[in-house]
Amino acid sequence: MIDSSISAETIESAISWLAGFTEKPGEQGVTRPLYTKSWKQALFALRQRFEKLGMTVEFDQVGNLIATVEGCEKPESIIACGSHIDTVSRGGRFDGQLGIVAAYLAIKNLLTRYGKPKKSLRIVCLAEEEGSRFPYVFWGSKNFFGLAKKEDVENICDSEGVPFETAMREAGFNYQTTQPKFANLEAWIELHIEQGPTLYSNHEDLGIITSIAGQHRWDVHLKGVQNHAGTTMMSYRHDAVDCMSHIIAKNLDKAKKAGDPLVLTFGRISVVPNQVNIVPGEVTFSMNCRHTDKAFLDKFLQELDEDIHETAKSYGITAQIDKWMSDDPTPLSDDIINLLKDQANKQGYAYRVMHSGAGQDTQIFAPFVKSGMIFVPSKDGISHAPEEYTDPQDAVHGVKLLRDALHSLAYED
Amino acid sequence: MIDSSISAETIESAISWLAGFTEKPGEQGVTRPLYTKSWKQALFALRQRFEKLGMTVEFDQVGNLIATVEGCEKPESIIACGSHIDTVSRGGRFDGQLGIVAAYLAIKNLLTRYGKPKKSLRIVCLAEEEGSRFPYVFWGSKNFFGLAKKEDVENICDSEGVPFETAMREAGFNYQTTQPKFANLEAWIELHIEQGPTLYSNHEDLGIITSIAGQHRWDVHLKGVQNHAGTTMMSYRHDAVDCMSHIIAKNLDKAKKAGDPLVLTFGRISVVPNQVNIVPGEVTFSMNCRHTDKAFLDKFLQELDEDIHETAKSYGITAQIDKWMSDDPTPLSDDIINLLKDQANKQGYAYRVMHSGAGQDTQIFAPFVKSGMIFVPSKDGISHAPEEYTDPQDAVHGVKLLRDALHSLAYED
Repeated sequence: MIDSSISAETIESAISWLAGFTEKPGEQGVTRPLYTKSWKQALFALRQRFEKLGMTVEFDQVGNLIATVEGCEKPESIIACGSHIDTVSRGGRFDGQLGIVAAYLAIKNLLTRYGKPKKSLRIVCLAEEEGSRFPYVFWGSKNFFGLAKKEDVENICDSEGVPFETAMREAGFNYQTTQPKFANLEAWIELHIEQGPTLYSNHEDLGIITSIAGQHRWDVHLKGVQNHAGTTMMSYRHDAVDCMSHIIAKNLDKAKKAGDPLVLTFGRISVVPNQVNIVPGEVTFSMNCRHTDKAFLDKFLQELDEDIHETAKSYGITAQIDKWMSDDPTPLSDDIINLLKDQANKQGYAYRVMHSGAGQDTQIFAPFVKSGMIFVPSKDGISHAPEEYTDPQDAVHGVKLLRDALHSLAYED
Repeated sequence: MIDSSISAETIESAISWLAGFTEKPGEQGVTRPLYTKSWKQALFALRQRFEKLGMTVEFDQVGNLIATVEGCEKPESIIACGSHIDTVSRGGRFDGQLGIVAAYLAIKNLLTRYGKPKKSLRIVCLAEEEGSRFPYVFWGSKNFFGLAKKEDVENICDSEGVPFETAMREAGFNYQTTQPKFANLEAWIELHIEQGPTLYSNHEDLGIITSIAGQHRWDVHLKGVQNHAGTTMMSYRHDAVDCMSHIIAKNLDKAKKAGDPLVLTFGRISVVPNQVNIVPGEVTFSMNCRHTDKAFLDKFLQELDEDIHETAKSYGITAQIDKWMSDDPTPLSDDIINLLKDQANKQGYAYRVMHSGAGQDTQIFAPFVKSGMIFVPSKDGISHAPEEYTDPQDAVHGVKLLRDALHSLAYED
């Protein structure tokens, strides 16, 4: 059993225990997609642990697990923490999962040391963040706030053709039919690994997150003229790859010049007909751009949009842009940021005030609840891979900062 | 039956007749790959036609068809013409095939008008130029000159897994086991469609070819670092698509500036892992470059090679270049070029002296035999497509120029 202390050993022990719930035992990494057997087993095992702490545990209808210890003075005010337990295929042991382990160890430590809180303390294990089994992200947290619709998922399947609804029903869950209960949430704090190299490469203990980057995703389709690579002189060509390369090269240079926190990625390219001896007539490529400042992001993307059309026009090529994701940046609560800074200063942690480039469940919470995030370093910035690793000592700092913040919010306030 | 005149009607009639031999009757375009049923039927039907002209017809062991009418004064000197009868999948009715039709009609016309030639006249229907069924080009012409090896094809299969050797044997042919007989070939002329837009867009009747462009094909593999598109700041990235786009954009600009006859194509791109939210770690792309001047081509490619390595280095990326085709430019015979020019001038044709950007069987002949080529215009430069089209009147000019050149070489010389 795990003792109530917060140490490298208790964290490693809990992380290893949770990593045991995987669809592919014996294989490197953790594979625990939404509504699978291992996902459900992990949730029920966590339920037992939370109940042993004296917490009241319930599932909502889509599978979010909610464990609450009632406050003795203001039970109607709820201070919540948690993260997600679903993983990508062959993911690591820390992404999301460390947030659940941290919430568990922090609250266990508080209950042991200080007994019942004044306000209620709650752990939320969110049903889905990654969208790695089905093409839909933040299903758990969106349902938690009544933001997901039945229509969003009723026509989607996993890679093996299993419909979302079938998977959900077979796991024993269903669409949210009653209004989600989040009205009394007073604060939310999520501890998460950075999944980037900043803290690790700068030898910093912790990150305190001020905002989650806005993110836009486009598919750009360029249609030129397919032609013979030997007989079509350069001046006769409408080469889609030529046009694309100029767009990508120019705008990545511009993004590098703009500097942090702007990131721009052209990750997917599909060329038609994709043959060595044919001038390519068509190409589709993806665009993914993130920044924490909405005005900056919007301006950068408007210029990118214009540049795509202008460059295409100069090549006699038609450009079509399908803008299929446009999430604005999410600022987090100044109250929580200041609380985390105060506590981190008290403990003498080397922390960085930073943004999250990755999308997080917390961006769903922030418009409704005072929300904050704590980042711990990721070795070499690696995530979504079996090699994902956080130094146990860094994890201890993170869990202790979470505990101290929860203490301040639920015991002192 | 086709009469011995050279007219739009006789050409159209012969082209339509030959187009009837296709693997996909009823489908648009002609599909007649090497060693298929339709390919063999076309060859045997051509054999009959040639025999009716009084020509002696034989197949060599790999399936080249050789029809000869013996000269009455110098039978040991052979003046040859022809082209290939294999097509790409859903190709046009003119590519290669017009060269066979032209050879047939020109010689038929000569025999009718002038009787037996002094030197021997020969038509060669080459077994394979396109390499569209098997990954091997110029099989027929290379065998004709003893340049193909058994080892070249013994491990290759078509897209349905049929080994080259099986297909060849089932069509009734075999590897060339005796020395090919080309020693007495004195001249070779191939009539072919341009497959490019130059003659058509300049309203010219004919092209007289001075050389066939050298062609180099590479696969370039860039290996950077795969990473999270949200959490990896621009300055931490080793983005393979970024590196590739700069290489492609810069060198295509350079190629455009260099001007004709240089052509440069990056037709095939494969990105790993090819996902919208991942900084791409690896990319492989193809390079295809052609020019008629060996020194210019070699220098351009050396600079491209250097630029790939330098650009990659500046991105912290490794570059590996697999140079899998390096065909030098092939100059054609000045004697034949001058003969064709003289005859074209006599007839008052608007002709262009030009190179062939496409590879041609004639490049295999040229080092051994005095060789020349006649191009006829391709509407809108379209080829390797059902829409491939040459105006019948342009075809008439081409066939008459071929006839006049053969007359000069075989009857007057």
